[in-house]
Amino acid sequence: MSMPWAGGCRFDLYNRGFMPELRKDPITGRWVIISTDRARRPSDFKQESVLVTGARFCPFCPGNEDKTPPEVLAYSTEGLRGNSRWSLRVVPNKFPALRVEGDLDRQGEGLYDRMNGVGAHEVVIESPDHMKTLAEMEERQVAELIWAFRDRVVDLKKDRRLRYVMLFKNHGEAAGSSLEHPHSQIIALPVVPKRAQEELDGARKYFDFKERCVYCDILRQEVRDGERVVLQTEEFLATCPFASRFPFETWIIPFRHDSHFENIQEREVYNLAWMLKSVLKKMDRVLERPAYNLIIHTAPVQEPGYSHYHWHVEIIPKLTRVAGFEWGTGFFINPTPPEESARFLRD
Amino acid sequence: MSMPWAGGCRFDLYNRGFMPELRKDPITGRWVIISTDRARRPSDFKQESVLVTGARFCPFCPGNEDKTPPEVLAYSTEGLRGNSRWSLRVVPNKFPALRVEGDLDRQGEGLYDRMNGVGAHEVVIESPDHMKTLAEMEERQVAELIWAFRDRVVDLKKDRRLRYVMLFKNHGEAAGSSLEHPHSQIIALPVVPKRAQEELDGARKYFDFKERCVYCDILRQEVRDGERVVLQTEEFLATCPFASRFPFETWIIPFRHDSHFENIQEREVYNLAWMLKSVLKKMDRVLERPAYNLIIHTAPVQEPGYSHYHWHVEIIPKLTRVAGFEWGTGFFINPTPPEESARFLRD
Repeated sequence: MSMPWAGGCRFDLYNRGFMPELRKDPITGRWVIISTDRARRPSDFKQESVLVTGARFCPFCPGNEDKTPPEVLAYSTEGLRGNSRWSLRVVPNKFPALRVEGDLDRQGEGLYDRMNGVGAHEVVIESPDHMKTLAEMEERQVAELIWAFRDRVVDLKKDRRLRYVMLFKNHGEAAGSSLEHPHSQIIALPVVPKRAQEELDGARKYFDFKERCVYCDILRQEVRDGERVVLQTEEFLATCPFASRFPFETWIIPFRHDSHFENIQEREVYNLAWMLKSVLKKMDRVLERPAYNLIIHTAPVQEPGYSHYHWHVEIIPKLTRVAGFEWGTGFFINPTPPEESARFLRD
Repeated sequence: MSMPWAGGCRFDLYNRGFMPELRKDPITGRWVIISTDRARRPSDFKQESVLVTGARFCPFCPGNEDKTPPEVLAYSTEGLRGNSRWSLRVVPNKFPALRVEGDLDRQGEGLYDRMNGVGAHEVVIESPDHMKTLAEMEERQVAELIWAFRDRVVDLKKDRRLRYVMLFKNHGEAAGSSLEHPHSQIIALPVVPKRAQEELDGARKYFDFKERCVYCDILRQEVRDGERVVLQTEEFLATCPFASRFPFETWIIPFRHDSHFENIQEREVYNLAWMLKSVLKKMDRVLERPAYNLIIHTAPVQEPGYSHYHWHVEIIPKLTRVAGFEWGTGFFINPTPPEESARFLRD
């Protein structure tokens, strides 16, 4: 934390003499400080709960379909709901960060490089129901979100200019979401983002050295150790990573090795839906309905399957502000050891 | 922005057909989206102004010196102020993220690496005056902060275990500061943080290719172009970088090449004090007293002078939330082109 004096109530902790610890993320090589001397319980985090009020006009609600651009994908569960026949819609973002039109044009300007923003920016309207969060939806509905992510990647990757597809969800205002109605986002880019590339490079280095996938090794070690495990099914492990950057950061990793999310199998889709819902429900309970970011980490879409990379989901509840310390340096201070976070979520 | 529907008031912008643009940071290789089609004026940012109220008990105010650990450095302007003889104090953080005690101990645990948190975490109390922000202080006082940063680095680098010293300031709650009284922070680490290493590596690659420092090249190009310049003095250039991650992000770069901040010369200290104060005053005026992070980027302290790296200051006003899009991917979407930001700050 970058708060030098976080409050008198923790003066007692000051004298216990725990030693802070530096941990290295085995994939990116990023060091994180785990300040075990001021381990925090969920109740120590000041934050705003995300409460859905449903008060105002919503462009994502049934009946307002004309307020969004035409769908690029829609699922339907015919007649299950009165005035609505769709159960999920994917529409282009009305204010896109990127546009599909135009040719990819790279230019120099002195020592600088620029490129026009060719790409796609879409919104997944996860359900006709304005009020239900992902944690509260039926499993069937969560599975539809996963199918929609997959179907859109399969479609977008046909455009050979697009090299990376980001699949993510911001839940709650603190996580950057400005609309209540449950929705996720898809951004397809003509470049591989630096963080994604770093993760890919780190995983490749490990593979070159050990001839094993680092994520497969993590799965084995976490299952054996158990102390950072949140939930385990046949298909997935939910775990708080060893070098967690944030309190209650949770990764969901498939046991079956695959570098590309879009190769997800039917059984895995339903298993992941259950897993996602369960983890988010646990977070809602332990952290009182926190805002969160959920991101699918996957390999660049135009590349063949990698032995060294392994797709997975990262969920980061927004509990503490990320301050200058982290910004300037990429160095994170996490006040809650992941072993503690996992224990709170497990119990 | 990760807000798919940011409000009906910008529907008119939607049809103008500006093209978003991807820009590459020449140092780190990071791509940034500059969404020029929704260029934002300062008044478009919702944010909280940082107003100093001075209401509660403050451990940094004169008379409460016993509420902080003993000083590691203090400056004095004898008797200038009634009941206080110090003008600046540096004290160890009462809840440090790192501790100086103990040997550096690296350990493996299966595939993971950990190290005990040896290091230093100090607080610079910039002034006895609770109410004056850095933008409002006398230049002399701002210069003392720069001297204190320098003096502490010179002292800390004697400990050969410490490889990197982070010098930064979080101003306002939105930037992660929990105390009003003007203060900065110093963190000395036994490792080089990943972001710092990336910047160093990127700068080295450029140097290997061109045999010129990338920052020196940036200085030349920015002075020639002029459109991203905020302020220019004999010693420093303040500029909004080409691939700005954030609206109104501003870098202050010394014209004299040096990789290590602690080699700053007396003339430069006073020039930088004026520059810092001026830039922060401009931000206060244009952005209505924003929260901000200020970070000194410098080379690892145990290393000799680098031809390829160039210390500088980065100031990032906290105007928009960084949401899942940026988190998961290290990919930034900046709604305000740096040319616009520079123009607003300049005028």
